[in-house]
Amino acid sequence: MPIFKAETLRKISKEIFIVYGAPAEEAELVSEFLIKANLCGHDSHGVIRVVQYVKAIEDGILKPGAKIDVIRETPSSALLKGNWGFGQVVAKRAMELAVDKAKKNSVGIVCAFNLYHVGRLADYTMFAAENNMIGIAMVNSTPTVAPYGGIERLISTAPISYAFPTGKENLFVLDIATSVCAEGKIRVSLHKGEKLPEGYIIDKEGKPSRNPADLYDGGAILPLGGDLAGYKGFGLGLVVEVMGGILSHAKCAYEADKKGNGVFFEAINIEDFISVDEFKDRIDALIRRIKSSKLRPGFKKIMLPGEPELRTEMKRRKEGIFIPERTWKEITEIAEKKGIDVDMFVGEESH
Amino acid sequence: MPIFKAETLRKISKEIFIVYGAPAEEAELVSEFLIKANLCGHDSHGVIRVVQYVKAIEDGILKPGAKIDVIRETPSSALLKGNWGFGQVVAKRAMELAVDKAKKNSVGIVCAFNLYHVGRLADYTMFAAENNMIGIAMVNSTPTVAPYGGIERLISTAPISYAFPTGKENLFVLDIATSVCAEGKIRVSLHKGEKLPEGYIIDKEGKPSRNPADLYDGGAILPLGGDLAGYKGFGLGLVVEVMGGILSHAKCAYEADKKGNGVFFEAINIEDFISVDEFKDRIDALIRRIKSSKLRPGFKKIMLPGEPELRTEMKRRKEGIFIPERTWKEITEIAEKKGIDVDMFVGEESH
Repeated sequence: MPIFKAETLRKISKEIFIVYGAPAEEAELVSEFLIKANLCGHDSHGVIRVVQYVKAIEDGILKPGAKIDVIRETPSSALLKGNWGFGQVVAKRAMELAVDKAKKNSVGIVCAFNLYHVGRLADYTMFAAENNMIGIAMVNSTPTVAPYGGIERLISTAPISYAFPTGKENLFVLDIATSVCAEGKIRVSLHKGEKLPEGYIIDKEGKPSRNPADLYDGGAILPLGGDLAGYKGFGLGLVVEVMGGILSHAKCAYEADKKGNGVFFEAINIEDFISVDEFKDRIDALIRRIKSSKLRPGFKKIMLPGEPELRTEMKRRKEGIFIPERTWKEITEIAEKKGIDVDMFVGEESH
Repeated sequence: MPIFKAETLRKISKEIFIVYGAPAEEAELVSEFLIKANLCGHDSHGVIRVVQYVKAIEDGILKPGAKIDVIRETPSSALLKGNWGFGQVVAKRAMELAVDKAKKNSVGIVCAFNLYHVGRLADYTMFAAENNMIGIAMVNSTPTVAPYGGIERLISTAPISYAFPTGKENLFVLDIATSVCAEGKIRVSLHKGEKLPEGYIIDKEGKPSRNPADLYDGGAILPLGGDLAGYKGFGLGLVVEVMGGILSHAKCAYEADKKGNGVFFEAINIEDFISVDEFKDRIDALIRRIKSSKLRPGFKKIMLPGEPELRTEMKRRKEGIFIPERTWKEITEIAEKKGIDVDMFVGEESH
């Protein structure tokens, strides 16, 4: 039963990336973010990606150690060309730059293109929030979502993230697809052989479907809001396509040669509007009042954005991370191919 | 049958605001935006507000001609105190300032507090787009929306707007409440005696309701996404409360002394990331591809954000704007109270 400590998985992941050609600090960062995703319960963005990334390195699609070019820059803005380096490496650099610019000039916006998969947006917006900034991220990718009223997959799940620093309350971090659900959820249901809830996807004829396989047979995910208000999720998805795909030079989901993620990151210096202490006090008060709301029948508590992830993280840090047999087998194989003995890392766990 | 030309309504509205103490240029701007709302089909934000605004002036809540104070300012940011002037006047100034800052410094963010009702956000974001900027707006107000899983009204409908310049295609402008619908829709159904679609509101016990009166009897509007994904609309609503209510100093919807709108406006200078011409070409191509999508059964066409409003505007510019008897009666009364003969303006129409 493959259950591992986060630290073990991180070491294995880092070692694998290094033997496949990544500089140590890149291998460290990417592994940290992948394992963080597992800890938070977003396994689709976790170590399962190690295998995908290694394959991309072998295929020459992902280029560890690639130099990041600054194509355009002003005191409040920059455009980065990632030259197909790790998405996490380019994106982290982008948010660091945005925060740096915001500290000096109130706001920093950094866009990036030609980079591989960035993982969870929360990692970047939380970095801004930890620096007493408001962090904003919009990222586009390949198409999986239909326009409101349409059948074709033309828009990416187009996630948006906002993070705010707090005082005594947990960090506020929203990280959501603008589609009704992320693609990972459909894939998990497919692998588990489960039916989807109604309202997630349509089949290739545009009819509502609960069979996850229909997505991969010409179907599409629906925009947030469903039949009642799906034009809103559709509109937000298009906004992300423009910010992450056009402003960033990364291309839109519908374009045949669209690859990787397109990044729009922003940091806003709170201090230029309100003192950080007052901001934190007021957001704490907002959170407390919201959480004290009377509950609807069937609900046990109000969960703030980021709270489900935090609860899962605390649990998994204690109990470990479950890795499906198939994923573990694949990781073991790519490790052994380069002479890494994963059992050595696992063996260290018991001490 | 009270159907009027937009121009007639604009003149009447302007004249009324002037006799109730508004400087001519303020009366002009407010009237222009109110009638624009009618033209676009958003009658809840149209001339019906003239009566509300006049009452607010008489009650000393709304102060035409109020000086706008710049409380904080940097090259890329500003915080405005509206001193309870017309929301439209303060908000227009805020977006003008944001655009001006963006032209010089890539980005401009301007927040505003202590101002009356701003009307439709699209008016401000479109102004930015017409200046070849990306326009962003988030505005909070009084509470009507429940948290996901909660019963109490603690969040405002918390609208968000984004506008992008286009080339040959119509301007892209998204202007949506982060609740499943705007409060105006519920009110219209109440006045018409119609039932609501399922999924719009809950009653005071948290049960789904189709009776619009239940909203005003302790019920609440649901966040965008409904039971399936309402935590997303809820999260976005909270983001707007923080940006429009905390960063802006305007207070959050849940606070007992919350009044007026809280404004977060941003303009981004496209030219610092990509040439405006290329941006426009690429957004045109995106719009064309999205509109050419195969349609789902039951849909006649894909409507881009802003398109329904544009169609209504073209129709109403030709056919006139219908004003309900009750609204017209109230407008006539407040006009006559100050010696304005509305029939004179209406009489001019036929010439």
